[in-house]
Amino acid sequence: MTTPWNHRYAQRMHNMGSSLLRELLKLTQDSEIISFAGGLPAPEVFPVEAFKAASCKVLEEQGQRALQYGASEGYYPLRQWIVEHMVRYGIEARVENILITSGSQQALDLIGKVMINPGDLILTELPTYLGALQAWRAYQAEFTSIPVDEDGIRTDLLEEALCAGPKFMYILPNFQNPAGVTLSLERRKYLIDIADIYGIPIIEDDPYGELRYEGENVTPLVVLDAEKHNGKSGSGYESGFMRGNVIYISTFSKTLAPGLRLAWIVAPEEVINHCVIAKQGMDLHSSTLVQMTAYELIKDGFLRDHVRHIRDVYGYRRNVMLDALERYFPEGTSWTKPKGGLFLWVTLPEEVDTLALMPKAIENKVAYVPGSAFYAANGLPNTFRLNFSNANPEQIEIGIKRLGEVLAEELARLSMNQPVFA
Amino acid sequence: MTTPWNHRYAQRMHNMGSSLLRELLKLTQDSEIISFAGGLPAPEVFPVEAFKAASCKVLEEQGQRALQYGASEGYYPLRQWIVEHMVRYGIEARVENILITSGSQQALDLIGKVMINPGDLILTELPTYLGALQAWRAYQAEFTSIPVDEDGIRTDLLEEALCAGPKFMYILPNFQNPAGVTLSLERRKYLIDIADIYGIPIIEDDPYGELRYEGENVTPLVVLDAEKHNGKSGSGYESGFMRGNVIYISTFSKTLAPGLRLAWIVAPEEVINHCVIAKQGMDLHSSTLVQMTAYELIKDGFLRDHVRHIRDVYGYRRNVMLDALERYFPEGTSWTKPKGGLFLWVTLPEEVDTLALMPKAIENKVAYVPGSAFYAANGLPNTFRLNFSNANPEQIEIGIKRLGEVLAEELARLSMNQPVFA
Repeated sequence: MTTPWNHRYAQRMHNMGSSLLRELLKLTQDSEIISFAGGLPAPEVFPVEAFKAASCKVLEEQGQRALQYGASEGYYPLRQWIVEHMVRYGIEARVENILITSGSQQALDLIGKVMINPGDLILTELPTYLGALQAWRAYQAEFTSIPVDEDGIRTDLLEEALCAGPKFMYILPNFQNPAGVTLSLERRKYLIDIADIYGIPIIEDDPYGELRYEGENVTPLVVLDAEKHNGKSGSGYESGFMRGNVIYISTFSKTLAPGLRLAWIVAPEEVINHCVIAKQGMDLHSSTLVQMTAYELIKDGFLRDHVRHIRDVYGYRRNVMLDALERYFPEGTSWTKPKGGLFLWVTLPEEVDTLALMPKAIENKVAYVPGSAFYAANGLPNTFRLNFSNANPEQIEIGIKRLGEVLAEELARLSMNQPVFA
Repeated sequence: MTTPWNHRYAQRMHNMGSSLLRELLKLTQDSEIISFAGGLPAPEVFPVEAFKAASCKVLEEQGQRALQYGASEGYYPLRQWIVEHMVRYGIEARVENILITSGSQQALDLIGKVMINPGDLILTELPTYLGALQAWRAYQAEFTSIPVDEDGIRTDLLEEALCAGPKFMYILPNFQNPAGVTLSLERRKYLIDIADIYGIPIIEDDPYGELRYEGENVTPLVVLDAEKHNGKSGSGYESGFMRGNVIYISTFSKTLAPGLRLAWIVAPEEVINHCVIAKQGMDLHSSTLVQMTAYELIKDGFLRDHVRHIRDVYGYRRNVMLDALERYFPEGTSWTKPKGGLFLWVTLPEEVDTLALMPKAIENKVAYVPGSAFYAANGLPNTFRLNFSNANPEQIEIGIKRLGEVLAEELARLSMNQPVFA
């Protein structure tokens, strides 16, 4: 049937849907399925009571303001709070360097809108965050990828890719989504140096940095970059960052709650000004009520204790999953051991296709995301991502056991060379 | 000073900022200024207490769900509510035809992303909503415009513009922003007929439709379109709308509160599916907490009474402003008499430049938006928009008096042919 819409869609809409995976993931919403597929926080760590108290206080004391239009840049006291908060990580910004966004996803979309022309090349990690690919495909970006190992992006392979002239590099330095790996300090320094030499900006996406379960924080790229451009440590954004190469993104989705849709961009003021103009055309501003409530909740130090609690819960779940993987996964499988975040990454023998295997996993009431989702072009079909934050320890134990059985059966089948749907 | 960013911005960012007006409007935030410039609702009509109760209830009973990620399509019960709500206006949709957006601005951005290729021609009213121009300029749209008169867009001028092959028409049929005019039923019918003949979709933007202070509702374009495509009245979206030409947008910003950022799109399911994919890349979904709270507040009929209250308040303010205009504005000025909405439109003698006059108005502690902001290309410089919802009746009286004095002085000056900064 023809509709007046058939030929009306923009070119960018072609190829934006990966419908098979979408349909498979819908199936994982069955409540009997133990899903390691999503990137969902554990709802039981949400600070519901504290949030309710903050919401009541805001509506009682500043209700009219909370329900009115607000500034595109974001709620000023919340921007100030973010400035102070980031000092803990060595990031020295001013309020003018902060833009509040409706989740990190909007930050990625904004950066795409401000920077990407059709055909522009973006350098990503391999594998990388699915949502960034989605956001930037809409601007008709092309992608080039460099593999990660346990120390993050393989910087030894970087220079050739930089010669192709990418518009920017997209890096998730901490507990990367999906691989769970962390970029080493040595590689971070190299990355900052080579980005400077080639004049290529870096988008540093850091949703999980605060969720570290072991080891020490590694200095953010944005800080190394500021130090380099200032010639000295610690005077960051005041002057030097304005010449810097890095746009930094972080979010409240993993430390407070994703249902708020609240994140932020840190960038040179000139970049923020461009982003503000773009944001006006996108949604005017993020919800005033949500921003004021979040600020009310966290302004007096709530977040520090709360994040400690989250670390305890997720760190334990990570341990339970790593332990279960050791016990239940068959010979020939391997996985990353993340020091934080929400995800780990499993690699199977080369002949396994995890997308083709998914219906079987779902049938056995367990789910993952096939690795192919996280590649801009063709990825390694023998990988998948597991989330360890959402399911509780008991579910993790059972789910990994189920998945181990599916994998063992598949490996046995492959060793006998049977077709999948025999 | 060069920065690595200078040459990194996308082409679309050129020409997106109208900096002079932006700077002038910043000045109007001075608390001594009576501003008719914004499009802000009156904060004193916000249902703060009821909102607080709803927010507490949601967090108490479904806190974990309210703080978790949600579906890109929007909160299902809210989409159902919207379906039922719209039946009052003759719009028959199914849940599958509804997408929740982060304000109407996001609906416009989404439509741009889904439909506009660089260079595509968009047909708008003249003047038209500034935010639509802003959203679609980011997709490098071109614009062609048809003037409005007291009965809305001049449909007698439409056919020639349609021959140029616009991607879609953008129409604000009720109490248009900025002109305050309403499209007559006769013209609506003609518009639907000619859109069908030329196969050009219509974007019907209806933020103010519920805020009518006199006269009867006029049938929405989306309903006329459904009737046409079904050959009979009232079976709307069930089948016929899926072949229809109209995308309809409405919002809770003017009936509940703009600080929520909550609006919706009604469209054929295939268009909604495209929009959902685009929205995933833009912000994943709109705030779960805000959607659930809004639903909790309105699910039992709250909105009908509340909108009646808003109509009383704004209708009275409109009357006060029309009355003050009669008394204080000089000979040679004229204005529209809107039957609803938030705005009216003033036309001055041709030699007056309202942008150039703005500093003088601000000096006299009163503000408007110069008409030139609402034109895609060159507009009539002798016009401006006045908002009558935000200032209270006393302020309206004083502000219109001040503005009348500024205009009288300007007209006297012009009749003596003095330079502006004599």
